Amino acid sequence: MPMTSQPSAGAGLKALLFDVFGTVVDWRTSIAREGAAFGRENGIEGVDWTAFADAWRGLYQPTLEKVRRGEMAWRVLDELHRMSLDRLLAERGLKGVPEAAVERFNRAWHRLDPWPDAVHGLARLKRKYIIATCSNGNVSLMVELAKWASLPWDMILGAELARHYKPCPEAYLESVAFLRLSPAECVMVAAHNSDLKAAHASGLGTAFVPRPLEYGPAGKPDLEPAQAWDFVAQDFEALADQLGC
Amino acid sequence: MPMTSQPSAGAGLKALLFDVFGTVVDWRTSIAREGAAFGRENGIEGVDWTAFADAWRGLYQPTLEKVRRGEMAWRVLDELHRMSLDRLLAERGLKGVPEAAVERFNRAWHRLDPWPDAVHGLARLKRKYIIATCSNGNVSLMVELAKWASLPWDMILGAELARHYKPCPEAYLESVAFLRLSPAECVMVAAHNSDLKAAHASGLGTAFVPRPLEYGPAGKPDLEPAQAWDFVAQDFEALADQLGC
Repeated sequence: MPMTSQPSAGAGLKALLFDVFGTVVDWRTSIAREGAAFGRENGIEGVDWTAFADAWRGLYQPTLEKVRRGEMAWRVLDELHRMSLDRLLAERGLKGVPEAAVERFNRAWHRLDPWPDAVHGLARLKRKYIIATCSNGNVSLMVELAKWASLPWDMILGAELARHYKPCPEAYLESVAFLRLSPAECVMVAAHNSDLKAAHASGLGTAFVPRPLEYGPAGKPDLEPAQAWDFVAQDFEALADQLGC
Repeated sequence: MPMTSQPSAGAGLKALLFDVFGTVVDWRTSIAREGAAFGRENGIEGVDWTAFADAWRGLYQPTLEKVRRGEMAWRVLDELHRMSLDRLLAERGLKGVPEAAVERFNRAWHRLDPWPDAVHGLARLKRKYIIATCSNGNVSLMVELAKWASLPWDMILGAELARHYKPCPEAYLESVAFLRLSPAECVMVAAHNSDLKAAHASGLGTAFVPRPLEYGPAGKPDLEPAQAWDFVAQDFEALADQLGC
């Protein structure tokens, strides 16, 4: 993977918008850990919680797609996560778990650990640029996650404020509009080519930061940039290097 | 002024919402300083910039009131500030100043200095609670102000997200709703009794932190709580003490 950047690196750039799940935080091992605790506390045995994490995340795009297509009314990700969780528990015959315990497990998405470079890399990037989320996670999820993982965001933007889920253009353009910037003054940072493709289509700059372990050792993450993104960096520290932070 | 608090101090409390202009930052001396620089850079003489700051702030409530009454369409505070600034410059016969200089002066509201206790006090409060703005300032103003003044907000909430200016109840209730909390789990922190009165009417807790110098040595700020607010503290450090932070 080429780790170079455009010669005009950072000129006119004011804000970095970050995808969060997978790009900033490691949802898979965190959800598996929370699942194991949920199982222990509720006497549930015989569940592979890493596979459960994959199944939960596997329902993410199909569920969001129902909202994007208008088949389901707008609701925040916490509620979509809960719908998927209820389905997965029912499919596995896990009944009778107290409501408070299920709700606490649903909020495991508020307690995801950051990739090792994330916190320090963000702190460096924040010195020079506005750093904000542009995630499908709702505001309260992102606020609590930031406190859990010590993510130093200047602002939580993204799907809930736009009332559109990525990759709908509104999710990017409304985020940019709240900052009163032009799309060209913002760079979308993500580990997923599909996210960058949509941001690029709305006029934002793009930074690809692969996360080889997002889906585990046997997963198939995006390892290479699918297009000539403006920046390609192996982690947030390298991105800070490229941007002169 | 009694510096005591309710016996149930902090029980069930999750988030602190802050008024910003006057409560967190000293707009008056900051705008006067920026005005003096604006004058020097544009060859303007004979203007009392502290009086200019007072006049600019004096147009704040009347202008917001037009939006609240529906006499003027919704627009963000940056734009309302600019309308007032243009009027004040015209009234003083200050014509021919380059547009970029006027716009830079308008953004003086993004460069206000914090009261001496604010940054450290907020950092302490943030350890235990969500700390968010609930200001009439727009998102980009609040984001840039936070960077300027090193204010460690977890989130920027308030008028722009609610599309209603305080003291309309929507400004408080929408801010609470984005956090997925109940009003009773939030405390509004302000130097102004009118702000606390409106927050209290919407079910939020209240904390009064007087700022004796907000309007200068001859000003008439709120020095005493007008009602039995939940907390009364002489500054953010004292509030952190009361809340066990």
